[in-house]
Amino acid sequence: MNLRLDIAYDGAPFRGYARQPGQRTVEGDLADALARIVGRDVDMTCAGRTDAGVHAVGQVAGIPDAPDDLVVERLLGSLNSLCAPSIGVSSVAVMPDGWHARFSAVSRTYIYAIDEGFPHPFRTGTTWQLPGSMDVDAMAEAAGHLVGDHDFSSFGRVPDPTASAVRNLFELKVWREGTVIRIKARANAFIQQMVRSLAGTLVAVGQGRRSPDDVPAMLAARDRSAAGPVAPPHGLCLVWVEYPGVETPPGPI
Amino acid sequence: MNLRLDIAYDGAPFRGYARQPGQRTVEGDLADALARIVGRDVDMTCAGRTDAGVHAVGQVAGIPDAPDDLVVERLLGSLNSLCAPSIGVSSVAVMPDGWHARFSAVSRTYIYAIDEGFPHPFRTGTTWQLPGSMDVDAMAEAAGHLVGDHDFSSFGRVPDPTASAVRNLFELKVWREGTVIRIKARANAFIQQMVRSLAGTLVAVGQGRRSPDDVPAMLAARDRSAAGPVAPPHGLCLVWVEYPGVETPPGPI
Repeated sequence: MNLRLDIAYDGAPFRGYARQPGQRTVEGDLADALARIVGRDVDMTCAGRTDAGVHAVGQVAGIPDAPDDLVVERLLGSLNSLCAPSIGVSSVAVMPDGWHARFSAVSRTYIYAIDEGFPHPFRTGTTWQLPGSMDVDAMAEAAGHLVGDHDFSSFGRVPDPTASAVRNLFELKVWREGTVIRIKARANAFIQQMVRSLAGTLVAVGQGRRSPDDVPAMLAARDRSAAGPVAPPHGLCLVWVEYPGVETPPGPI
Repeated sequence: MNLRLDIAYDGAPFRGYARQPGQRTVEGDLADALARIVGRDVDMTCAGRTDAGVHAVGQVAGIPDAPDDLVVERLLGSLNSLCAPSIGVSSVAVMPDGWHARFSAVSRTYIYAIDEGFPHPFRTGTTWQLPGSMDVDAMAEAAGHLVGDHDFSSFGRVPDPTASAVRNLFELKVWREGTVIRIKARANAFIQQMVRSLAGTLVAVGQGRRSPDDVPAMLAARDRSAAGPVAPPHGLCLVWVEYPGVETPPGPI
């Protein structure tokens, strides 16, 4: 049968989501737990291969060929018992044939968080600490130039240089909550390090080192060096993966 | 001069707030940082001596005899640089003579958090994980019996058995936010383990092991064994200390 897992994780202890030999990864920990439950290795798919140190509250994984004799009702508890506290599985669902965690997803939403306040012990692990006072209006103006169907080569990498870097950025919002500034990015898909490059560029604008008017030229350059730096991974969180049908996005992290 | 520090901490690595020889405590870490800045030991006071493992987002400490040549404007940054990420100082203020972190405080507010959902990696450190579905209405009814001026001997300890265990519990509220149930307790002061005993008792009511109607007899017994168990420390957070004058309580943890 075809299973869907909804997963939250603190990215700090992991070398990213995707399994890598000799490294601790979220997928590796999940696959090890599954293998102990099932008695053999099972293939997994996922909606967003987050980088080392990036968090998730809305990651979605698939197990396309889960054994039919698996007791789904017990799987949630078993996975949460076997996984470290850094990983929590929020639900296990049986999906129709053909549903695929990656290929069925129509959008991914990430939130990047920056904290301008003091080093709050409950926030330093999930926000980029940047003392100062950024111009959120300028960041929002810059964000407006980035929304839409663009070649994002200036804002990330594609592993295969012949592949397209065109993505559809549906939404790029910036807002302030007290000392915390959040950047929400929703797209059909992202190229590598794209959200963190967008965040790093918007921060450069917020600090006055770049102008919102520079952004169209950054996009047009199709050259990584044209845009701002890559923001650190621990401020980033995958919050929602959208599939066709009625679903409500969760609140921010 | 007389200084006030506002402090947040993750209680997990500490044997409580108050300094103890040979133990890592919040006050010990703060005092060590202060001694490095000032060049000598300085006395500190505090509004609430939280137990081992208990968190704070609104602890208040005082330095009644801070050296007059201390540059207050730099102290905030210096303390945050020297303290571990588990402690964050949110502000340093010069107070009038006679202000005292403990004796000037008119109320302390704690929030106890219980999570009935899956083990969420960003909540397991600050909530008591209790799968199930508690009766929040029954908990609120029980809480109503506890509000007021009472001898709370059944709900905690006083180090000196001849001292009074009478405290004025101004507010005891219970509410649900998704899978998280929060208990807010505001009193002039609390006896040892009082908030955690109130929380443990309300949980026993929420799970149907005790009735709201049992609560008046628990109070009247003045015997620790009459009430419910002590809830674990990591679900508890000191969120606000009130001083005379206009102050706004912060949002919950």
